Amino acid sequence: MALVKTKALVQKPPREGAMFRNQLLAMTVAFATALAVPVWLAPGAPAGTSGMTDAGATSGTAAVSDSSPMSGSGSGAAMDWKTMDEQMAKRDKSFPAATKGEGGKDLAPTVLADGTKEFHLTAAPTKWEIEPGKTVDAWAFNGTVPGPTIHVNVGDKVKVVVDNKLPESTSVHWHGMQVPNNMDGVSDVTQDPIPPGKSFTYTWDATRPMVTWYHSHHDGTKQVTSGLYGAIEVGDIPTPDNIKPNQVVLMQLQDAGTIGMTINGKSFPATKPIDAHLGDWVEITYINVGTMEHPMHLHGVDQLVIAKDGFPLPAPYKADTVPVSPGERYTVLVHADAKGTWAFHCHIFPHSEGAQGMFGLFTEMRIS
Amino acid sequence: MALVKTKALVQKPPREGAMFRNQLLAMTVAFATALAVPVWLAPGAPAGTSGMTDAGATSGTAAVSDSSPMSGSGSGAAMDWKTMDEQMAKRDKSFPAATKGEGGKDLAPTVLADGTKEFHLTAAPTKWEIEPGKTVDAWAFNGTVPGPTIHVNVGDKVKVVVDNKLPESTSVHWHGMQVPNNMDGVSDVTQDPIPPGKSFTYTWDATRPMVTWYHSHHDGTKQVTSGLYGAIEVGDIPTPDNIKPNQVVLMQLQDAGTIGMTINGKSFPATKPIDAHLGDWVEITYINVGTMEHPMHLHGVDQLVIAKDGFPLPAPYKADTVPVSPGERYTVLVHADAKGTWAFHCHIFPHSEGAQGMFGLFTEMRIS
Amino acid sequence: MALVKTKALVQKPPREGAMFRNQLLAMTVAFATALAVPVWLAPGAPAGTSGMTDAGATSGTAAVSDSSPMSGSGSGAAMDWKTMDEQMAKRDKSFPAATKGEGGKDLAPTVLADGTKEFHLTAAPTKWEIEPGKTVDAWAFNGTVPGPTIHVNVGDKVKVVVDNKLPESTSVHWHGMQVPNNMDGVSDVTQDPIPPGKSFTYTWDATRPMVTWYHSHHDGTKQVTSGLYGAIEVGDIPTPDNIKPNQVVLMQLQDAGTIGMTINGKSFPATKPIDAHLGDWVEITYINVGTMEHPMHLHGVDQLVIAKDGFPLPAPYKADTVPVSPGERYTVLVHADAKGTWAFHCHIFPHSEGAQGMFGLFTEMRIS
Repeated sequence: MALVKTKALVQKPPREGAMFRNQLLAMTVAFATALAVPVWLAPGAPAGTSGMTDAGATSGTAAVSDSSPMSGSGSGAAMDWKTMDEQMAKRDKSFPAATKGEGGKDLAPTVLADGTKEFHLTAAPTKWEIEPGKTVDAWAFNGTVPGPTIHVNVGDKVKVVVDNKLPESTSVHWHGMQVPNNMDGVSDVTQDPIPPGKSFTYTWDATRPMVTWYHSHHDGTKQVTSGLYGAIEVGDIPTPDNIKPNQVVLMQLQDAGTIGMTINGKSFPATKPIDAHLGDWVEITYINVGTMEHPMHLHGVDQLVIAKDGFPLPAPYKADTVPVSPGERYTVLVHADAKGTWAFHCHIFPHSEGAQGMFGLFTEMRIS
Repeated sequence: MALVKTKALVQKPPREGAMFRNQLLAMTVAFATALAVPVWLAPGAPAGTSGMTDAGATSGTAAVSDSSPMSGSGSGAAMDWKTMDEQMAKRDKSFPAATKGEGGKDLAPTVLADGTKEFHLTAAPTKWEIEPGKTVDAWAFNGTVPGPTIHVNVGDKVKVVVDNKLPESTSVHWHGMQVPNNMDGVSDVTQDPIPPGKSFTYTWDATRPMVTWYHSHHDGTKQVTSGLYGAIEVGDIPTPDNIKPNQVVLMQLQDAGTIGMTINGKSFPATKPIDAHLGDWVEITYINVGTMEHPMHLHGVDQLVIAKDGFPLPAPYKADTVPVSPGERYTVLVHADAKGTWAFHCHIFPHSEGAQGMFGLFTEMRIS
Repeated sequence: MALVKTKALVQKPPREGAMFRNQLLAMTVAFATALAVPVWLAPGAPAGTSGMTDAGATSGTAAVSDSSPMSGSGSGAAMDWKTMDEQMAKRDKSFPAATKGEGGKDLAPTVLADGTKEFHLTAAPTKWEIEPGKTVDAWAFNGTVPGPTIHVNVGDKVKVVVDNKLPESTSVHWHGMQVPNNMDGVSDVTQDPIPPGKSFTYTWDATRPMVTWYHSHHDGTKQVTSGLYGAIEVGDIPTPDNIKPNQVVLMQLQDAGTIGMTINGKSFPATKPIDAHLGDWVEITYINVGTMEHPMHLHGVDQLVIAKDGFPLPAPYKADTVPVSPGERYTVLVHADAKGTWAFHCHIFPHSEGAQGMFGLFTEMRIS
């Protein structure tokens, strides 16, 4: 995620001591942001207190600057509420904001003579626009974050050629899939890493309905949070009463690295709304590709949790908030039975809503 | 939450360099505390180690000062164990400690001519005593944290007038409730924010049994962790075998902002015990109004988990530890079948038990 | 957990200002490590950016040094990928690495005249080897982390004599067990703490099948994360279709304190593999003795979740990733139906896989 710009802190040449103090403050603010902790929890000054009225003007400025959408709040007191409301309204009403690039599009296979579906994935550095004006250094499959979605049917023979154009070695793991051990994609456990400039061909059969993801299993802390992940759908997972959803939505939740707090590679206001018609059934699968749990809360309409990790649940249950931990998937059915524009977000507010308005893991379901 | 006092660090005029070093240490300690991380995990000195015997006297002093009940431990080594035990016993046995103010009391409605139940909520800054001697700057509904509990019946028409006496705009969201879209209370998504000095009237019907909460949906990172939340009960949620609980308890769990680690706005030793008689059924609903998951562990007697987010579970299950994530509610039935004073706490020890004894998310169930 | 060594930062006498800057950086890196946050999320310099190509050589060196297995990554760019791969392969292929000491061994009871099974636990400081070359100051029961496993049968009368040879008082709690209130082991709630040099005798009956743990309930933030925990098994918990597992495995997950990110007191590559034969049923119980949630992901073979906190689930469900929160236990059945060496790890990559290869909460299931 982008660090807080610290222009305000270095505007004029400071004294030697002051410089360290400022750097210290800047680092603390930046660090709080990196940890997705509200900035106002960090001290405004070395001897500061945490009272909401104590936020210094300096950290306040940093917290609401346009360049730090991830930061928390605390700046309200330092800013006229009208200005705060205007900036918030401007940001919130810019949704859905256009950005360059869209991740997670279906990847077309080549069908070989024996029926095998062959896909190509190229891992390479790319510039990726997270939200308007915020472009980061990503490592991506086929130039998008998330990488393309691989959709196959139960019984398909699958071949995936992975080309590594990264400056580092890599490997690709098919999370939750039944694959031969030497196709499991874990560097130094089931295969040698794929060096820069080389490729590796994975082959496996799609044995059962599944919704899951593929991702790097080499230096996962950096490579996955840099964008090296994408979804896999095998057939359709069973639904109660054989409900046929009017649309199927995948939400790949990231929270760290250069990609930061994003749904399908974009953060609010560049996240994509879910548009449905009154009476529709919408099937949503959350895929946590990040490093923290995210309790996903949808306003206005209930979520019926029908599958975990692609496996149908024996006892589906209702919820308005569905926590999803790293590596997990939850599939929910939503009956679009109430018209309106409904907020849809991670309920950890430091991941979705602060003094600048909405950010990060926030989108909307619009039922008309 | 209150930051660690750093008196020990600035007792004598330091050299210029030493000052920065001290400020650095103070900030790190403060930051660790703000993040609810055991202070002893933070380095005692730049080249320090994490061994428990390495805690410097300086950070040790900070960690066990009365002004930092949230801090972890690590100071034992720097303190005689007898002194440590005495301070711990004094603190732990002061439970339940009296404080000014009690949150979550039932709010009486005015019944209008057409039967509508009208409630009034005023959001305003207030001083709030978290535990004896620790008073914070809260933003609260009707002067208490949590705000008053709204109790209505299924079928009731409900009207809630919200007056904003904060220095910032706000809005109120009825989490998990079926309300008209323009009554959903999300700033800049379903309504304009309520500016300081203005009011907004929410109207909705109570359509089904529910246990949930209302909260600000404007700058949620700050406003909710400053105290702008309260509970809603609609009728009684169904229980297995139609068990009639002898008492119904709501536990609103907070962990951040000025309110910090609290159950119903108070931290141990000012949390309220649950008193039951042998053979009673006690129904408890956890409501996570904070920013972190809290696994709630009750000693001595089992928890039967019967509902999630107010929806009865199709397959209730037993547990001794129930993790609750932000926005979630879990309802459990406890059969008080063992006499005694049973510890009841978040099992993340940095949220409940350290060198100073119990703190934060800790209370007791007393069965007689 | 061990802090990052910062040799690289102090190699040559720096200018006064530079020294503070370096200390600052060292502390930030150390702090990020203590929080199990990828180091490369922390700024490489006060005005740095989070791009993966921006990691300075300095923090890069720290991040991949052999002395900081817990650190994240970000250093790849600063290191030749071939060197990185070599170091990674060397580390990953050293699994399972030999270390001194093994925790969790069965503790033999003395059977008294009336049939009571008497156990002895001595809490004392000890040196404990976490992984090759990393020895920490632990506080342990009977000299190992975890302490020995207590195995009894339903109906057994149990007596446990606890000797305290720590420099601090302590107490022992039997988590989730049905015990008399004065045997529950919570300092200053159900008993006076056990002072250094003294002992306390706990007596209780084993009333039902259970898989759980015992641990200090005195300064839990420090004492439990220093190693004062162990497992308890009472009989066998019921399995669906009366499946008889070929082996039963307990995985005690720690993440903080001196013990740090470990499975049964060891971190990769010193964790113990699970060896099974094709067609075996393996029963695994995760016991979270730490301070964070860990989603445990097993490659290649499914997990059937059959019990929570030792209580059989009414509706067992399949998963490939099982999140376990502090204090919780989940019991899963694994059918070893695919040959190979399968990765088995916490899916929070900052807890298991980084630039240096695997670390912390990572092990392997080897099916032959």
